[in-house]
Amino acid sequence: MKTMNVWVSFLTVLALLFTANIMANERYGKQKVVYHINYDDPKTQAGALRNIQNHINAVGAENLDLKVVMHGNGLSLLLTPDAQERTKLDYGNATEEMQARITGLKDQGIGFQVCSNTLKGKQIDVMKDLYDVDEADIVPSGVAELARLQAMGYAYIKP
Amino acid sequence: MKTMNVWVSFLTVLALLFTANIMANERYGKQKVVYHINYDDPKTQAGALRNIQNHINAVGAENLDLKVVMHGNGLSLLLTPDAQERTKLDYGNATEEMQARITGLKDQGIGFQVCSNTLKGKQIDVMKDLYDVDEADIVPSGVAELARLQAMGYAYIKP
Amino acid sequence: MKTMNVWVSFLTVLALLFTANIMANERYGKQKVVYHINYDDPKTQAGALRNIQNHINAVGAENLDLKVVMHGNGLSLLLTPDAQERTKLDYGNATEEMQARITGLKDQGIGFQVCSNTLKGKQIDVMKDLYDVDEADIVPSGVAELARLQAMGYAYIKP
Repeated sequence: MKTMNVWVSFLTVLALLFTANIMANERYGKQKVVYHINYDDPKTQAGALRNIQNHINAVGAENLDLKVVMHGNGLSLLLTPDAQERTKLDYGNATEEMQARITGLKDQGIGFQVCSNTLKGKQIDVMKDLYDVDEADIVPSGVAELARLQAMGYAYIKP
Repeated sequence: MKTMNVWVSFLTVLALLFTANIMANERYGKQKVVYHINYDDPKTQAGALRNIQNHINAVGAENLDLKVVMHGNGLSLLLTPDAQERTKLDYGNATEEMQARITGLKDQGIGFQVCSNTLKGKQIDVMKDLYDVDEADIVPSGVAELARLQAMGYAYIKP
Repeated sequence: MKTMNVWVSFLTVLALLFTANIMANERYGKQKVVYHINYDDPKTQAGALRNIQNHINAVGAENLDLKVVMHGNGLSLLLTPDAQERTKLDYGNATEEMQARITGLKDQGIGFQVCSNTLKGKQIDVMKDLYDVDEADIVPSGVAELARLQAMGYAYIKP
């Protein structure tokens, strides 16, 4: 009898989650969003990645076109701790745990874009110092990219 | 004679304020805006409420559709000091003084929206822990709501 | 022979920079952007000015309509160190070095707009206390101006 109660509770929760998800999808539809990261505090950056996962959960990966634009100190999100000393950034926050989260978001279609000006200014070697960035992820200017995406209809969020 | 001078000064100031107000209204017309609060520093939050009052003064309550979207640590704005320990938030900033300001803004038509994801994640009981929130103020996801409102033509301000 | 090598390197770098610039211009086209400054940390403000210079470099001054809207503590960017004590702001960041940078940006067409509400609230005398502000740079309300510009198609960046 107790086991059955547990099952009923479990199924009720499942049904509620499922309904909440459908309601959220109906409310939100398709979205285009750019997240702006230009700070190096590891806690705030980890919070931003959680925000993005919650955003995906609410809207559905298939409905969401979400890009993270990083420039200035924000590149520390992808900078490995070992590489930090070689660069002019104060933080290298791409620990193994953060790398796993970033890969998890990429697998759900999130794009991470890196400012070319910052690469030069902060003496960062894309291939050696940053986690999993290739040519296509580099934009000429982070700030100009933020303006470009908004002009294309992307909403702006600074987490 | 002195009394008359005081009256003239008073009327001049009144006239100037009135003119400034008309000029501001003509410049600004009708506005739709969303304010983003995801931080828990009480000073910054109090500053945000002042910004909103100034916004109303400049545009006129009847011309302004302004929503405050709170998620993550931002919910501390509505969390009462007594309730803070029961939750996973570090601050409960809804003192009596802040409650009065929030009610003042609501009376002028400002909406305060609360992220449902955060309620679960931070173990907050809407009815017991938050100041004056009801069902209609809860949105499925704070970040998705920010994107939704911008797509509907709301300007974004992070105070 | 060595001299020639240096020349070849120099010309190659020039050519690369030139190509990068053309590519950036094609990517970005004409842009309208508003930068939001409401904080008084001198480092973050200096960073914002660097962001703006990089933005100009990427898009080209002739393609860029960029306004900086300052309100609240953000007015410290234009407040001279000598004048700070006379006002209710905690910082006066317009040192000679910052003044030179601000003039440099203005010469490239950047507008700096000052909130009239803050002038009153913080007891700032535009003519005596702020660096190079005239009547045309004063807007009735910083926050309402941010909403107005976004409604006119300006992208929003909080640096």
